[in-house]
Amino acid sequence: MNRSDHRLAGDRTGVWLVGARGNVATMSIVGARAIAAGKTDTTGMVTKREPVSSLDLPPIEGLVFGGHDIDPESLVTQAELQCDRNDVPDETTLAAVRDDLAAIDDRIEVGTAVNCGAAVTEESERIDDSLAIRDVIEQIRDDYETFRNHHGIDRLVVVNVASTEPEPTEPERYDDRDGLERAIDENDRELPASVLYAYAAIDSGHPFVNFTPSTANAVGGIRDLAATESVPHMGRDAKTGETLVKSALAPMFAGRNLQVLSWEGHNILGNKDGLVLEDDANAAGKLASKGDVLDSILPEIGHNRVRIDYTPSLADWKTAWDYIHFEGFLETEMTMQFTWEGSDSALAAPLVLDLVRLIAHADRYGDGGLQPQLASFFKAPIGVDDHDFSRQLDLLYDYARQDR
Amino acid sequence: MNRSDHRLAGDRTGVWLVGARGNVATMSIVGARAIAAGKTDTTGMVTKREPVSSLDLPPIEGLVFGGHDIDPESLVTQAELQCDRNDVPDETTLAAVRDDLAAIDDRIEVGTAVNCGAAVTEESERIDDSLAIRDVIEQIRDDYETFRNHHGIDRLVVVNVASTEPEPTEPERYDDRDGLERAIDENDRELPASVLYAYAAIDSGHPFVNFTPSTANAVGGIRDLAATESVPHMGRDAKTGETLVKSALAPMFAGRNLQVLSWEGHNILGNKDGLVLEDDANAAGKLASKGDVLDSILPEIGHNRVRIDYTPSLADWKTAWDYIHFEGFLETEMTMQFTWEGSDSALAAPLVLDLVRLIAHADRYGDGGLQPQLASFFKAPIGVDDHDFSRQLDLLYDYARQDR
Amino acid sequence: MNRSDHRLAGDRTGVWLVGARGNVATMSIVGARAIAAGKTDTTGMVTKREPVSSLDLPPIEGLVFGGHDIDPESLVTQAELQCDRNDVPDETTLAAVRDDLAAIDDRIEVGTAVNCGAAVTEESERIDDSLAIRDVIEQIRDDYETFRNHHGIDRLVVVNVASTEPEPTEPERYDDRDGLERAIDENDRELPASVLYAYAAIDSGHPFVNFTPSTANAVGGIRDLAATESVPHMGRDAKTGETLVKSALAPMFAGRNLQVLSWEGHNILGNKDGLVLEDDANAAGKLASKGDVLDSILPEIGHNRVRIDYTPSLADWKTAWDYIHFEGFLETEMTMQFTWEGSDSALAAPLVLDLVRLIAHADRYGDGGLQPQLASFFKAPIGVDDHDFSRQLDLLYDYARQDR
Amino acid sequence: MNRSDHRLAGDRTGVWLVGARGNVATMSIVGARAIAAGKTDTTGMVTKREPVSSLDLPPIEGLVFGGHDIDPESLVTQAELQCDRNDVPDETTLAAVRDDLAAIDDRIEVGTAVNCGAAVTEESERIDDSLAIRDVIEQIRDDYETFRNHHGIDRLVVVNVASTEPEPTEPERYDDRDGLERAIDENDRELPASVLYAYAAIDSGHPFVNFTPSTANAVGGIRDLAATESVPHMGRDAKTGETLVKSALAPMFAGRNLQVLSWEGHNILGNKDGLVLEDDANAAGKLASKGDVLDSILPEIGHNRVRIDYTPSLADWKTAWDYIHFEGFLETEMTMQFTWEGSDSALAAPLVLDLVRLIAHADRYGDGGLQPQLASFFKAPIGVDDHDFSRQLDLLYDYARQDR
Ligand SMILES: NC(=O)c1ccc[n+]([C@@H]2O[C@H](COP(=O)([O-])OP(=O)(O)OC[C@H]3O[C@@H](n4cnc5c(N)ncnc54)[C@H](O)[C@@H]3O)[C@@H](O)[C@H]2O)c1
Ligand SMILES: NC(=O)c1ccc[n+]([C@@H]2O[C@H](COP(=O)([O-])OP(=O)(O)OC[C@H]3O[C@@H](n4cnc5c(N)ncnc54)[C@H](O)[C@@H]3O)[C@@H](O)[C@H]2O)c1
Ligand SMILES: NC(=O)c1ccc[n+]([C@@H]2O[C@H](COP(=O)([O-])OP(=O)(O)OC[C@H]3O[C@@H](n4cnc5c(N)ncnc54)[C@H](O)[C@@H]3O)[C@@H](O)[C@H]2O)c1
Ligand SMILES: NC(=O)c1ccc[n+]([C@@H]2O[C@H](COP(=O)([O-])OP(=O)(O)OC[C@H]3O[C@@H](n4cnc5c(N)ncnc54)[C@H](O)[C@@H]3O)[C@@H](O)[C@H]2O)c1
Ligand code: NA
Ligand code: NA
Repeated sequence: MNRSDHRLAGDRTGVWLVGARGNVATMSIVGARAIAAGKTDTTGMVTKREPVSSLDLPPIEGLVFGGHDIDPESLVTQAELQCDRNDVPDETTLAAVRDDLAAIDDRIEVGTAVNCGAAVTEESERIDDSLAIRDVIEQIRDDYETFRNHHGIDRLVVVNVASTEPEPTEPERYDDRDGLERAIDENDRELPASVLYAYAAIDSGHPFVNFTPSTANAVGGIRDLAATESVPHMGRDAKTGETLVKSALAPMFAGRNLQVLSWEGHNILGNKDGLVLEDDANAAGKLASKGDVLDSILPEIGHNRVRIDYTPSLADWKTAWDYIHFEGFLETEMTMQFTWEGSDSALAAPLVLDLVRLIAHADRYGDGGLQPQLASFFKAPIGVDDHDFSRQLDLLYDYARQDR
Repeated sequence: MNRSDHRLAGDRTGVWLVGARGNVATMSIVGARAIAAGKTDTTGMVTKREPVSSLDLPPIEGLVFGGHDIDPESLVTQAELQCDRNDVPDETTLAAVRDDLAAIDDRIEVGTAVNCGAAVTEESERIDDSLAIRDVIEQIRDDYETFRNHHGIDRLVVVNVASTEPEPTEPERYDDRDGLERAIDENDRELPASVLYAYAAIDSGHPFVNFTPSTANAVGGIRDLAATESVPHMGRDAKTGETLVKSALAPMFAGRNLQVLSWEGHNILGNKDGLVLEDDANAAGKLASKGDVLDSILPEIGHNRVRIDYTPSLADWKTAWDYIHFEGFLETEMTMQFTWEGSDSALAAPLVLDLVRLIAHADRYGDGGLQPQLASFFKAPIGVDDHDFSRQLDLLYDYARQDR
Repeated sequence: MNRSDHRLAGDRTGVWLVGARGNVATMSIVGARAIAAGKTDTTGMVTKREPVSSLDLPPIEGLVFGGHDIDPESLVTQAELQCDRNDVPDETTLAAVRDDLAAIDDRIEVGTAVNCGAAVTEESERIDDSLAIRDVIEQIRDDYETFRNHHGIDRLVVVNVASTEPEPTEPERYDDRDGLERAIDENDRELPASVLYAYAAIDSGHPFVNFTPSTANAVGGIRDLAATESVPHMGRDAKTGETLVKSALAPMFAGRNLQVLSWEGHNILGNKDGLVLEDDANAAGKLASKGDVLDSILPEIGHNRVRIDYTPSLADWKTAWDYIHFEGFLETEMTMQFTWEGSDSALAAPLVLDLVRLIAHADRYGDGGLQPQLASFFKAPIGVDDHDFSRQLDLLYDYARQDR
Repeated sequence: MNRSDHRLAGDRTGVWLVGARGNVATMSIVGARAIAAGKTDTTGMVTKREPVSSLDLPPIEGLVFGGHDIDPESLVTQAELQCDRNDVPDETTLAAVRDDLAAIDDRIEVGTAVNCGAAVTEESERIDDSLAIRDVIEQIRDDYETFRNHHGIDRLVVVNVASTEPEPTEPERYDDRDGLERAIDENDRELPASVLYAYAAIDSGHPFVNFTPSTANAVGGIRDLAATESVPHMGRDAKTGETLVKSALAPMFAGRNLQVLSWEGHNILGNKDGLVLEDDANAAGKLASKGDVLDSILPEIGHNRVRIDYTPSLADWKTAWDYIHFEGFLETEMTMQFTWEGSDSALAAPLVLDLVRLIAHADRYGDGGLQPQLASFFKAPIGVDDHDFSRQLDLLYDYARQDR
């Protein structure tokens, strides 16, 4: 079957989640199945609101889930934990989808964990580390294909929702397709897992979304490949909480020519993502993409700091306190502060479903390479410089209106 | 001199402030003169930032101030009070402009106070209440013309920065030019002062800005007149604090399809504006324009309340606490809250100068009637339905880019 | 049976809740039964912590519940509503006590609703309004005795947790026992329900707690009666949220000789209590007892305002925002603000159980009249002037240490 | 002159400030002289409020200031900087005391900087580092005596308000007087400056206050010396902002048996103290004394973190955001958060004057050794375990009432 074929038509869209037993993945699956069962509505989904809802997108009911993980604990257990600790999902919803979760858990394969830093623990399972990188990629690719064949899937979308990795040192060597493929062939032991998952997906023609701050499709080598092969992809680091607010609020200060002297952002959260980010190496990418938003919108900002701290009792709730010290007319110093209290995965999950639907749509219509209309979903939208949330949304709305 | 003449060229722009001894007026004058003297910069001015700064606008140094008020206390005293209570302006700046203030104070005439409610006190001076409405208008018009002639002014802009009036009952009778002029001729004793100031300005061909929530140019009769006579005007109720934040933040909830269950806004402020707004009649218009912003951006909002309370110790500082209770995916309830602490007049003053410059520009290029490109400056932009701050700014930027 | 008899010994303590189907009552009953069933712990109960826990208090397992209400909706339904809207109690806990609730609901009698203002709705049931006041009291007294006899209760404590009533006009006429009893005999139609419940309890020798801001035992006539008859009683208006914080925080400003210029308190809540308090008459008492705390601790406070607003989506959650503007050394103005987000009834319920246990203890040891050692539980502790929470707690701790 | 002599009577109290050109010192001197000049009042001073004000304390007008510093920039310049950056003091007050500041600056001697870590910069002056420790102490002692003699001072109080030092390693060796004096004699190069200042003061019979988290009088050796020689002393780390609030608020959670799951404290400040605390070594002591308060009041706290970050634009303003996640009845999770915004030095300065007056009083009445009645002033009151602010104040009030 050649590439263009599987871009035509088809209602069964496969969703391959890398990190399929994590919070975001679990909540996405629970939500999709609860919607399919008529147990919840689609609040929080951008694709269910005008003008985007006018696009002819794959139905939520038709999404078929599978994925990789390194954590052996089952999806059912993960969902129960979340219900217990966060009340999201609630007990009724969980009961309605429990059987679906059990079935989907059977389709989760063991992934690779090379260079994943603090995410890997004693309990982790993983593809044998002694395998050559090329062979690891082949195994991943096999997992994708087996899933596609077994489930009669017309189009497969791969989404990275695995734990944040440390950033690779000297990523320049992967800056074009040749460099990247040479590294693979030479069995470069510093390639991080996310790049392997992305390579396997795009080289097989599967649309790819990087929901995390990990490297994955951000290196030039993958971008080259996707452009040449015309496979749609986008990332990175979904914008769900404090950074979303920043991207809506900072343009106000800019627009009114108010001088931001300091913007302090302090995030506390208690889930596994928070625990992994306690590790400085794993946190580096996240802090960078969070900080860049302000630097870009407010180039003359005086001071810009983001902290992420792990506070176990908060479980999946992420609380951010931001303090903005700014100067206006006649050197008057003023302040604004906000506190954001959100359920991290409940904010992320509908966006996973949105992104799957939108990138499948792009694929169906033959739009390969980066997908700038998806910029509003990301803290660090690859290839898009504008961080103003309103303007990013306009990119999506224009796409929706033209495409109809 | 006919109308078109005084639209051509000229550098001396007159600024006639109705409410010329109030906080906003005082701070605008102090700021303009301090800029002229090189004692402060233009932070907070929208017209001093790209792309708007590329327009060929009248220079701040050339603005000539005059106005009406009903409070006999001099501009110098007002500025001293502000310096003392708020540290804005600071002592150095005040010293640098004190002589200018004294000179400008000599150009402030006694205004009319018909139907101004709680704004009128025992100390107030006012145009004789027994005069016929038509004669009051003539006196106002005379004041405008005398000022223009004495100071060699090429173009005169009238800005209403007087205290908020109660809303008129049955404003429908002023809904077209005929109705309005009939009311004037029949000496309708319920016409509020702001309408008289607006009528006198526009009927004389002077561009008019309504910075307040008062009626003024919002009635159909004035809008008709301005359209027919091709005089630019805009309003109402400048957007400086909590509502500004709302207009930047609410689109984020809409854009992400999050359901706002309740949005509580609680404002406390200690200046004279706050005191006048303690009176329910005077507050009505303000509360309406503040509330409408959310209703428009979030049509499905569950609960939307705005409170304004008078807290004397805060002086000119306005503190707003907003609490937003919203629902996301999987019926998850979340919250955001913010506190905004701003010097009310320091936020307002640069916008007065911006609006003067931009409406003078429109007048110079013959753009009469409502000026939708100025929507971003107002809580209730007359004739513009979109309350999204980003989109409103785009109207201004498009104007600036085309006009150049 | 004479009065002293039922003060001796006995493990079965009856708890008669006036307003037995309200939020506070429901949560108290759910909590007590869940503790008895080993399904929850006693976090939040003052009597379960040293030094108070050393007193020989009636066991929670032995509390027998009954009460009056005017709302026909059953206790089970009320608890289900709370579970559904607030997740407190959670589903597991509710399931464990559902049968107990059904049994207790059978012991709830129809109460009187005279002068209860906005609390009375179309659905309300009530003791026939045409009965003479004296007869209403007799009926209430009968309900108490029947309950006591049917359930083999050794000591009965009556707790008022009914909706807040409007304050009576001219309460002076009830200022001593004679005046109060004359009013009853002369069928004074302005006596509010709470006074009738309190009179019936104390005249029958039952200890009485007023958890609400309603009049009840605050009038001199009831206090006389309780003193003469040596029946312990205390009130009023339990201190659970914002006011609790104030009583802990305001002494800090006093102790450091910092001058509070303004203290703004803004409460939003969404339960039935909030709805009733939307009515100005019903709210008056609440606002008074909330405001008095600061006036007493900070006699030189410049400005002190409390607002309570009804925000339906919050259900039983009460959010308070307090803003404190204060002056320190060298006339430096500073600010503190806090946001309190609590489940109103979950904060109140353990205190109901504490108060029952402590007032039963006082009764058992023959301590009649007001019980100042309970001051820390109340916003307006009858007969106690000190509002400093720490000092109030010391009264309780001293009592506990001596009494042992 | 023997020790007991200079304890008798006398009105001229000398105040020797170690760190005399720092923010706290400057503000203390400005405040005392402004009070003496009748230019400001005593708001913020605990000794000016009942019951403490009834003690016969040395008058503020009679305080004579001198001190050590390592920063050559004059006191006048420091005060001007503070006025400019923070508006505290304001220009009028500064003008009134400028001559006093210049005169006092002449009495500031160069101090020692051994082991002061990040506080020492290229601009610093310092007592020759190659001197033996014993000789450094002699020089300090000489400075104290010269000052006393030149200014006819009856009693000299030494107050450490110098930058926070790193904590010494192995402080056990200084745990008794012998060990400490042996270290001095053996020229131990790890003794920090604060211990030298404290030793010189107490060995000369001068009461000593440690306003900072530095070691100074906290080691056993100094405590022994002060006890044996009967010299009053107290410390450490003045409680002025976030920690003050914690010590008032945490007892409320304890008193109501509410379980604090997490208490996050995030401080941002922009003065030199903040800059020095950027250095981890210098911050260690501060973080410890801040953290201990909660651990002591809430022994079962789940999670307790304090962060201090440097945010230059805030200048002397310290903003703290605290987030408290707690559990109540029926496992209900609730939250409280507060933001404190204070001028750090304006909060500290009145306490310096209070402490000087109170420790001089103790000295006058022959009370040597630790002064527990001063516990309420400190984050880590030496020798006092109770961190409840109310109870600490009671120690002071009891002292004031007895002593009268
Ligand atoms: N609001 C949000 O939750 C949000 C927003 C933006 C980005 N993200 C990012 O999404 C990612 C997932 O977040 P989460 O809260 O679900 O975290 P999580 O820790 O709950 O889940 C991550 C999952 O990835 C698995 N995993 C780790 N390394 C893997 C590997 N090499 N291969 C396969 N599986 C692997 C883990 O075992 C775990 O099950 C994180 O990178 C996070 O930063 C989340
Ligand atoms: N950030 C802001 O300050 C802001 C923002 C939006 C709108 N506004 C509006 O701007 C207006 C002015 O605000 P302010 O803070 O300067 O108030 P202010 O009370 O300080 O000044 C109002 C001035 O108007 C004068 N006045 C009242 N009635 C008059 C009349 N009939 N004719 C002439 N003068 C009259 C008063 O004497 C006073 O000097 C208010 O309507 C306010 O609602 C202010
Ligand atoms: N944190 C708290 O919840 C808190 C704190 C302090 C005081 N209170 C007070 O406790 C009381 C109860 O609060 P709630 O939240 O449970 O309110 P609620 O409205 O849920 O319950 C009140 C109950 O009283 C019943 N009632 C009304 N009038 C009655 C009458 N005359 N006789 C018998 N029953 C009557 C109502 O039908 C209702 O069932 C209120 O007065 C409230 O102000 C509550
Ligand atoms: N609210 C408060 O301001 C507050 C509260 C509690 C404790 N403190 C403590 O008080 C101290 C002073 O705070 P600040 O804000 O004035 O700091 P600062 O940095 O403004 O002043 C410290 C001064 O000490 C001087 N110094 C440093 N090392 C010295 C040495 N070895 N000998 C003599 N002088 C020396 C510095 O040159 C500087 O002038 C700090 O330790 C701080 O932690 C301050
Ligand atoms: Na919350
Ligand atoms: Na502030």
